[in-house]
Amino acid sequence: MSFFSEIPSIPYEGPDSKNPLAFKHYNPDEVVEGKSLRELLRFSVCYWHTFRGTGGDPFGPGTMVRPWDDGSDSVDNALKRVDVAFEFFQKLGVDYYCFHDRDVAPEGSSLKESNEILDKIVARLKEQQESTGIKLLWGTANLFSNPRYMHGAATSCNADAFAFAAAQVKKAIEVTYELGGENYVFWGGREGYQNLYNTDMKRELDHLAKFMHMANDHAKNIGFKGQFLFEPKPKEPTKHQYDYDVAACVNFLRQYGLEDVVKMNIETNHATLAGHSMMHEMEYARIQNMLGSIDANTGDLLLGWDTDQFPTDIYLTTQCMLVLLKQGGLAPGGINFDAKVRRESFEPVDLFHAHIGGMDTFARGAKIAAQIRADGVLDKFVSDRYSSYDSGVGSEIESGSATFASLEKYMLEKGEIEANKSGRQEYLENLINLYI
Amino acid sequence: MSFFSEIPSIPYEGPDSKNPLAFKHYNPDEVVEGKSLRELLRFSVCYWHTFRGTGGDPFGPGTMVRPWDDGSDSVDNALKRVDVAFEFFQKLGVDYYCFHDRDVAPEGSSLKESNEILDKIVARLKEQQESTGIKLLWGTANLFSNPRYMHGAATSCNADAFAFAAAQVKKAIEVTYELGGENYVFWGGREGYQNLYNTDMKRELDHLAKFMHMANDHAKNIGFKGQFLFEPKPKEPTKHQYDYDVAACVNFLRQYGLEDVVKMNIETNHATLAGHSMMHEMEYARIQNMLGSIDANTGDLLLGWDTDQFPTDIYLTTQCMLVLLKQGGLAPGGINFDAKVRRESFEPVDLFHAHIGGMDTFARGAKIAAQIRADGVLDKFVSDRYSSYDSGVGSEIESGSATFASLEKYMLEKGEIEANKSGRQEYLENLINLYI
Amino acid sequence: MSFFSEIPSIPYEGPDSKNPLAFKHYNPDEVVEGKSLRELLRFSVCYWHTFRGTGGDPFGPGTMVRPWDDGSDSVDNALKRVDVAFEFFQKLGVDYYCFHDRDVAPEGSSLKESNEILDKIVARLKEQQESTGIKLLWGTANLFSNPRYMHGAATSCNADAFAFAAAQVKKAIEVTYELGGENYVFWGGREGYQNLYNTDMKRELDHLAKFMHMANDHAKNIGFKGQFLFEPKPKEPTKHQYDYDVAACVNFLRQYGLEDVVKMNIETNHATLAGHSMMHEMEYARIQNMLGSIDANTGDLLLGWDTDQFPTDIYLTTQCMLVLLKQGGLAPGGINFDAKVRRESFEPVDLFHAHIGGMDTFARGAKIAAQIRADGVLDKFVSDRYSSYDSGVGSEIESGSATFASLEKYMLEKGEIEANKSGRQEYLENLINLYI
Amino acid sequence: MSFFSEIPSIPYEGPDSKNPLAFKHYNPDEVVEGKSLRELLRFSVCYWHTFRGTGGDPFGPGTMVRPWDDGSDSVDNALKRVDVAFEFFQKLGVDYYCFHDRDVAPEGSSLKESNEILDKIVARLKEQQESTGIKLLWGTANLFSNPRYMHGAATSCNADAFAFAAAQVKKAIEVTYELGGENYVFWGGREGYQNLYNTDMKRELDHLAKFMHMANDHAKNIGFKGQFLFEPKPKEPTKHQYDYDVAACVNFLRQYGLEDVVKMNIETNHATLAGHSMMHEMEYARIQNMLGSIDANTGDLLLGWDTDQFPTDIYLTTQCMLVLLKQGGLAPGGINFDAKVRRESFEPVDLFHAHIGGMDTFARGAKIAAQIRADGVLDKFVSDRYSSYDSGVGSEIESGSATFASLEKYMLEKGEIEANKSGRQEYLENLINLYI
Repeated sequence: MSFFSEIPSIPYEGPDSKNPLAFKHYNPDEVVEGKSLRELLRFSVCYWHTFRGTGGDPFGPGTMVRPWDDGSDSVDNALKRVDVAFEFFQKLGVDYYCFHDRDVAPEGSSLKESNEILDKIVARLKEQQESTGIKLLWGTANLFSNPRYMHGAATSCNADAFAFAAAQVKKAIEVTYELGGENYVFWGGREGYQNLYNTDMKRELDHLAKFMHMANDHAKNIGFKGQFLFEPKPKEPTKHQYDYDVAACVNFLRQYGLEDVVKMNIETNHATLAGHSMMHEMEYARIQNMLGSIDANTGDLLLGWDTDQFPTDIYLTTQCMLVLLKQGGLAPGGINFDAKVRRESFEPVDLFHAHIGGMDTFARGAKIAAQIRADGVLDKFVSDRYSSYDSGVGSEIESGSATFASLEKYMLEKGEIEANKSGRQEYLENLINLYI
Repeated sequence: MSFFSEIPSIPYEGPDSKNPLAFKHYNPDEVVEGKSLRELLRFSVCYWHTFRGTGGDPFGPGTMVRPWDDGSDSVDNALKRVDVAFEFFQKLGVDYYCFHDRDVAPEGSSLKESNEILDKIVARLKEQQESTGIKLLWGTANLFSNPRYMHGAATSCNADAFAFAAAQVKKAIEVTYELGGENYVFWGGREGYQNLYNTDMKRELDHLAKFMHMANDHAKNIGFKGQFLFEPKPKEPTKHQYDYDVAACVNFLRQYGLEDVVKMNIETNHATLAGHSMMHEMEYARIQNMLGSIDANTGDLLLGWDTDQFPTDIYLTTQCMLVLLKQGGLAPGGINFDAKVRRESFEPVDLFHAHIGGMDTFARGAKIAAQIRADGVLDKFVSDRYSSYDSGVGSEIESGSATFASLEKYMLEKGEIEANKSGRQEYLENLINLYI
Repeated sequence: MSFFSEIPSIPYEGPDSKNPLAFKHYNPDEVVEGKSLRELLRFSVCYWHTFRGTGGDPFGPGTMVRPWDDGSDSVDNALKRVDVAFEFFQKLGVDYYCFHDRDVAPEGSSLKESNEILDKIVARLKEQQESTGIKLLWGTANLFSNPRYMHGAATSCNADAFAFAAAQVKKAIEVTYELGGENYVFWGGREGYQNLYNTDMKRELDHLAKFMHMANDHAKNIGFKGQFLFEPKPKEPTKHQYDYDVAACVNFLRQYGLEDVVKMNIETNHATLAGHSMMHEMEYARIQNMLGSIDANTGDLLLGWDTDQFPTDIYLTTQCMLVLLKQGGLAPGGINFDAKVRRESFEPVDLFHAHIGGMDTFARGAKIAAQIRADGVLDKFVSDRYSSYDSGVGSEIESGSATFASLEKYMLEKGEIEANKSGRQEYLENLINLYI
Repeated sequence: MSFFSEIPSIPYEGPDSKNPLAFKHYNPDEVVEGKSLRELLRFSVCYWHTFRGTGGDPFGPGTMVRPWDDGSDSVDNALKRVDVAFEFFQKLGVDYYCFHDRDVAPEGSSLKESNEILDKIVARLKEQQESTGIKLLWGTANLFSNPRYMHGAATSCNADAFAFAAAQVKKAIEVTYELGGENYVFWGGREGYQNLYNTDMKRELDHLAKFMHMANDHAKNIGFKGQFLFEPKPKEPTKHQYDYDVAACVNFLRQYGLEDVVKMNIETNHATLAGHSMMHEMEYARIQNMLGSIDANTGDLLLGWDTDQFPTDIYLTTQCMLVLLKQGGLAPGGINFDAKVRRESFEPVDLFHAHIGGMDTFARGAKIAAQIRADGVLDKFVSDRYSSYDSGVGSEIESGSATFASLEKYMLEKGEIEANKSGRQEYLENLINLYI
């Protein structure tokens, strides 16, 4: 049975192709810095936006036309969606997908029933994984939609909400393990506050740390070796999320002794809502050895909410790839398109256009970044710029032998500093354009 | 000699006074939570805005009329300014002031000469402190104005800039010590980047940590016992400051082993530029035992730059005081008005209006917050809200005896959570208004 | 039958009352500037948020507990809601309400059926209006929720969507007329664009103008004399709304000859999302004789979306009332609380807390503003500030007798301008605090 | 005498050139849509940033190394700067420049003296224009730097400030005329307010209109036929500028009968600070026949102030050129680089890198946009999308023959609308990437 019979598998046709249902830049077998693009980019489709997104927004209900979906919460409908999803992944040629527990399986009337339903769906997912070779990049649990989580999950003022979340994450880690998931993600949908007047921030953060430690203990117990990932977001739905940005997340992890257990899953639009460029967040995580995976999308910088658009800006993907290549890739993480088609792009084919655009733009960014690196133009500029630290007083500073007293003595003798050099930002921006 | 002969000392005349040059709420001897307002609030005037601010902006030069200032960079002019400043502090009735090295003393043609000039001014400051009883809340060094710091100071790509900054901070700590300063502040004026293409973020952050360790070592060497403070700011002048917000600062301190040595100096307008309320930043620092001092001002939330306005919003000061009182005060920190009169408020009397407004609004906030605390209305609401953690499964979570398995078992049996309760945000906002 | 039996009518108990279900400032019979507060403020409850709001957000479904509502789209349920609403209006003591067609009545399977259902509900609304004396401040049509309006209504690329919207607004004006509505509002929920690449802005704006002219023609035909109002909003749900702010709306009205027919309905949170203070938008509309009515709420200035919170900030309501009193009131417009309780404030009593807070804060603002006006402190400051235009060269400028040549001659002779005076912003901000 | 002897004229070397001091895309003689790029783009260098920019910012003084400039305010220095500027224009190969009166000539101790100095400089400018063929795109007056304009110029509360501004603009129009300037720009540097408490907005706007009418009258008197241009900016330096965005400007012009006299000069970073994309502002002005000229730069969308960076984003310039080509060019307007090198790009060669980048990116955008237009891919998509207005009910709407009654009848019969079609935003974004 085919749900996308009118769509053939998406071919690679090269940059001159005018076929909108072809890749122009993503040739999965093309080798960049010693890896095929397939291995390097590890593209993943997200189940929630692509198979559960309705197009609803605060001003109107869903618009999406999904002929395969009867709109019900039945298990049969959920099973059918699995088949559709894997047909989609195959046509697109991605190797990975990601899901929340409640995306793939409807919630039952009790925790027990919910778990049983989830098991049925997981069995089908496993079957499909085996028959197609497509893998699970990461699993996670939806701890924000059900009204029981209105005040948060691990940070709820209601201890039962914590307990329910714990049970749900226990199961989600188990099914992630069952499906060979390579990572497990914490995104704290409502882990934050709406109002400081009614909030005990200290107690909430302590609880969140307990929760993550329990998750880690459980993973050890069952033998799950996947990487835990923490996903920053500054706000929305809450006024203020505890996992504001990479700095807030890593600070939390360090404070509670979790820094060796958890890395970051960084999302572009979350970064920009927090006032950072995606390149900043990736590089800042990388230098702390905390860059685990990315949720690739983009926001509209003139809008103040999470638009989760597909990334089509070549500058953005080039910057991402400059950091990613510096780290030698993201594995076991990957590039997950946590992105949705617009409410008005309601036809199935729009899902293809959207993912093709995202994949092509990342592949293009990869090749541009690799060429910049191969030519050494940025690296050489930067290493020259800091060369005063490679010898003399600079190397004493780096080695730890300098003190305020030694540096004062040096400068009293020298009187004034060696002249600064231009930072050449305009030149460097032109340089990037040369490669695009 | 009097520079403000037309201004008498500012009296306390109570809330019904219509005298614009009187306090309506700040009665320094009034006792709030066991401390006089004087002891509790520890108001401080900043030297830079109040005595060196010109009213210049990117679109035009200074406007301020300062009859005592000949506009020159002479030492005599600088000495005269000291006398003016202390007359101002006395008339206003504040007990503290703060300065950067280059605010109080002009820079000489060499580091040596600069230090000698600074010593002369410091002698006069000390004299004035002794004769008036006014104290130094904190000292700091200006590491951002001189073009030598165009690429940063401790994070400059030029090792000589680091060295010069080290010499300058060495001296600044020494004069802070000499003047009995109770804290020393690091605000990294240009410690950030303009462009990631030309930046080695890892190396820059490593250097910043080296710098702070050297400062701490030097303080130990000379016996300076004041508190080190780190001041967050997200951007401006650089595109991205490393000390983005409290989370970024504390994460840095933890990463480099400085968390026991340095606390936070939090500024309102910096908080809001980073997307946080001032109350958030203060509370987030407090619960990590990192709340040291505050730079009291306010921004205009419809503007995207640091306006450093005087705080006159009663909600803001009430929120600040709710946190401050929870901590039992800020000492050795204080409330420093890092605020400037607008470019069009160019007459000396505007300096009085501005400080009176800030002091009165904080005193008013202190009394409101104390009354809220005395009545227990917020505290009781919050402790009730989290009471499910005081026993049963909640207390097992807090004590560490719960596991994912025990919580799953609990919830499988229970089926669904105890019903949530309304967060009552609207009620609480009305409640605050009852106290204003 | 009573739906709020546990809630008595809300009494006025004065500022010292601690009863959360009492007014502390809103005494409807208190006279301010010659009008009772009831007449001056003309408070209105909005049907959509208060009776149709579910608490759903993009990250989770509704939470609101509404015992009277069976959750169905039945006509009976809709009729019952009318009764609940009027009980609520009465207990609260408001004189007005507002609605969209689809708030009060479910949509049928065809336009014809929808109109028939609407007629049934309108009959009940009319009955309730007559028996309670509560009036309709304004009616409007929901032209944004139904997926048929995904590309806009009057600005849709689909002419049929325009036609359907025309039919819907025709009916909405008719029922507004039937119910004695004093105004009719256009809020262009999706009248904007998501992407300029697929948009013909000129054609869309031309269509919008045609639409408004048709509405005006129809109103004339049926004898509806209510005021048409246009409500600005910069973005959300679309990336860019055509009715961005007051300036964009008035420019549109002038361009298409509608400026004598339509005034503004200004919403606080829409103003701030466009970068303006509410006071700015109100005053800017007022001086163009375009201030019709307001949608009173507030946003969170650290968030980038429309939060529609109830207004509880005394500064905000004082500023609104300063403009409103300058105009001598808003009639036939009023103060409509286009505001919603937070998702976590899900109990019916939260609706009372929310509206009480909004009403009290506006009443308090009214009294503060009236006192400021009575004392003349701001007015006098401002008229003095501009007094150079009352005579001499200033009056020649205002009268139109001055020319560039005459002014050049004047200034060549004079050489330099009369000295400027301080704008005294800090003093004025302190002054406002004296009245709070 | 040569000031840039080390820099040859900038050659066009084609897209594969690695020479940083060559054009890769801007071949002035290349023909695009029937015009040479030189004629189409009409590039202009701004005198203020490029020859008077110091690199100063609110946190430090200037950094720029300009060997030809003795830093003095002398007339000789100003004359020398003229020669430098024209050498720069020639090397770069631009045909136009722009200036404020105070950029080119120092201000004297009186209006009279200022005018005399200006005349001297204008004579030299004229000489240089004649000998090089470089022309003046537009002139303007600086009405914001001198403290006399602290409260505004035409909107100052001080009538003398208005008079001085009038005299200054009179002269500026005259010298623009003398130099054959093709336009005259009003940018209201401080025409706005800092605080509504001290502001009479009505009176200020009335004065601004008087001012523009006087300017227009004077232009007629002297025979100046250049286009007047009004430049929107939302804020900075004032809290709120009256010329917020194109909508606010055009509304003002319509209100005061100036809409046939003045068009828009639109600046990218001003657009984005007001919440609009540059493409929006250009298209919105274009469809009102108000698009006069552009100030080409870019902002950093994560920063809240005007950074005036050189435009190097190909998407941005493609979007600008799509609108510009639709209008058939901007003449008598042009593309003026109102952009500055960063404070750290302090060497003269950085001025070349910056302008080369801006020019190349615009030329590249021009060719991309022209190709998109030649292929008709966007135009066809858009005209198809609106085709329902080309016949039937849609054409009745456009022709004015439809009424609410006729449309209701049509829709009652039809029941539901013709199905909507996907807006295909993701496809269109991919399409743009095909051309880059």
